[in-house]
Amino acid sequence: IISKLPGVGTTVFSVMSKLAADHNAINLSQGFPDYPCDPHLVELVNKAMKDGFNQYAPMPGNPFLKETIARKIENLYQVKYNPNTEITVTAGGTQAIFTALATIINPGDEVIIFEPAYDSYAPTIKLLGGLVKTYELAPPTYAIDWDMVKKLFTANTRMIILNSPQNPTGSILSEDDMRSLIKLIKGTDILILSDEVYEHLVYDGQKHMSVMLFPELRERSFIVASFGKLLHVTGWKLGYCLAPEQLTTEFRKVHQFNVFSVNSAMQQAIAEYINNSENYTGLTRFFEQKRDYFRHLLSQSRFELLPCNGSYFQCASYSKISKEKDTDFSMRLIKEFGVATIPVSAFYQKATDYKIIRFCFAKENSTLQMAAEKLINV
Amino acid sequence: IISKLPGVGTTVFSVMSKLAADHNAINLSQGFPDYPCDPHLVELVNKAMKDGFNQYAPMPGNPFLKETIARKIENLYQVKYNPNTEITVTAGGTQAIFTALATIINPGDEVIIFEPAYDSYAPTIKLLGGLVKTYELAPPTYAIDWDMVKKLFTANTRMIILNSPQNPTGSILSEDDMRSLIKLIKGTDILILSDEVYEHLVYDGQKHMSVMLFPELRERSFIVASFGKLLHVTGWKLGYCLAPEQLTTEFRKVHQFNVFSVNSAMQQAIAEYINNSENYTGLTRFFEQKRDYFRHLLSQSRFELLPCNGSYFQCASYSKISKEKDTDFSMRLIKEFGVATIPVSAFYQKATDYKIIRFCFAKENSTLQMAAEKLINV
Ligand SMILES: CSCCC(=O)C(=O)O
Ligand SMILES: CSCCC(=O)C(=O)O
Repeated sequence: IISKLPGVGTTVFSVMSKLAADHNAINLSQGFPDYPCDPHLVELVNKAMKDGFNQYAPMPGNPFLKETIARKIENLYQVKYNPNTEITVTAGGTQAIFTALATIINPGDEVIIFEPAYDSYAPTIKLLGGLVKTYELAPPTYAIDWDMVKKLFTANTRMIILNSPQNPTGSILSEDDMRSLIKLIKGTDILILSDEVYEHLVYDGQKHMSVMLFPELRERSFIVASFGKLLHVTGWKLGYCLAPEQLTTEFRKVHQFNVFSVNSAMQQAIAEYINNSENYTGLTRFFEQKRDYFRHLLSQSRFELLPCNGSYFQCASYSKISKEKDTDFSMRLIKEFGVATIPVSAFYQKATDYKIIRFCFAKENSTLQMAAEKLINV
Repeated sequence: IISKLPGVGTTVFSVMSKLAADHNAINLSQGFPDYPCDPHLVELVNKAMKDGFNQYAPMPGNPFLKETIARKIENLYQVKYNPNTEITVTAGGTQAIFTALATIINPGDEVIIFEPAYDSYAPTIKLLGGLVKTYELAPPTYAIDWDMVKKLFTANTRMIILNSPQNPTGSILSEDDMRSLIKLIKGTDILILSDEVYEHLVYDGQKHMSVMLFPELRERSFIVASFGKLLHVTGWKLGYCLAPEQLTTEFRKVHQFNVFSVNSAMQQAIAEYINNSENYTGLTRFFEQKRDYFRHLLSQSRFELLPCNGSYFQCASYSKISKEKDTDFSMRLIKEFGVATIPVSAFYQKATDYKIIRFCFAKENSTLQMAAEKLINV
């Protein structure tokens, strides 16, 4: 058969997590916590299963969960989303991204992405027959020059993918960025897919610039969020997609034939859990402390730390340490030093090697400490 | 925005289940059990969560689960699938179907389906730019004339979707059917997507004709299976896809960017559960008794029952009762008689009304009895 994704191999996150296991290395590569979630949340799933939440959930999501999401959003952002017509529960953030793209992209449509980027965007666009238009961000700030973005616009530009806080760079979009974007797309019918799975992880008192805060953006945006990241349960594969009614209607047409519906007991449990908002405040501080701790530990190393304004991730340059390609360097880190990371070149389509690797600091402090002890010797 | 699925509304299963709830009707429409799953299975999920299975499962699936699937298949069918390269765990059967189609279909490719058919096939093919070539099956036997199927072949025929036992008709493919199919596709490079989610529900001592039993078919087939149907937990959204290595490699490329991976704790629990094969033998007899019981109950009604050789479903003609369209008739059944069913026209793309409705008998005997008491008055 002819491959529809000839250039694509197994996603780097699987590859690195497997290498970490094979070499018994400390795994700071794939983005997931290594500490337990709240046992109360587990208890709520157990209860939901015993209460009989084991058959198909409603296709767009458990109604109680959708109402809880709407309430959470209104509390956090003072923005209203209608649970019946504008919120769809998904099998994780990645499925929401895939489905939004499948809803919109027709062959020949162009989608603008900012690289380095989460590695599903470009292949998903290509799979659907779309064309990827790439804006390359450069370290250390990964700032966007919006006039240069405008140069990527053509008559076929259909969508822009935003991701703030950004994976892998930990950079965030500012209010100025949002204002520039609003100006740029005014008068066009370009849609936005805003991957906000790290919405709660914005540090140093800065505000998460959700596209929903800007009516001119909200009206044309799919917003993707993740319960895995909110509740430290990435393996539950639960997230949601917000979009205005017209977009949601089309999104759900695809969703219903893609996964149909999402885990029933876990939806019910999460609804009960986050309905008590006490259960997830403190998340920002929790991760900020991990970032600070990890940066402190690495300050004794030869790595040069890039800014980290949000997300699970700390990027670092090793150019003072080695001239190796980042894929070779990260392989050597695993084999010789016992620490798994992600080479940032994996987040670019073109060969682009700034000698930067990504660490995930969503780990036990003891894990971070053990890793740092090894990294100090590099 | 321009809809990619302009003719498509909300899937009939959601619509009917919602109507059932709104009218407080007995729900024999959407295919799911109304009785609890084995409490031991729930306990195993609880244990898996407590044991820390809350982060991303490996992308192709939990290794223990994949090995268990391979063993189950070898026991049942004496066929070997390699867990590392030929088995992928999915978020339910529907996601496996969507992903297999997304892996293969390019714009202009033709896919042959047999109608009445599960309602995801045609829109998924169209979403991907493919063309649906429909072979219409006719009641009461829904038999296939393979010479007529051959007439649908063109240079663009890329895939044939099989579904045995079939939803909604409960018909099954015979060994003769399989032999005819083998002859038909010999020398072509047509692939097969075989939806076998009801593989265990084949009645009266007949044998399930899995495509995997025929090497000439197996080598070109994606086979879709469902744990929801095996274990009475449709809401867990867990299934798997079997395919030869080359097809699996491409399938996983799409899978990893669609949902990435599947519920971690439930994969572990299912592996432990079905590893003890005692836990699911008796399934055929269990459903066969339900079918027999339901047919017995309805024998006192004016409905004419069609043959049911497999699946969750019993189809019945109401042409002796009414001349209404099946959508109107099933609506009246809900409103006036308090029983929800699926009008079989929902499984055809063209308006095709044989005055047949589908009942799901995967329900408590008491539910079936209550429904029958109402249906006898129709
Ligand atoms: C879906 S696996 C990848 C998890 C993640 O977001 C990352 O490591 O970047
Ligand atoms: C995915 S919802 C539909 C369940 C089912 O297979 C059916 O009712 O036909």
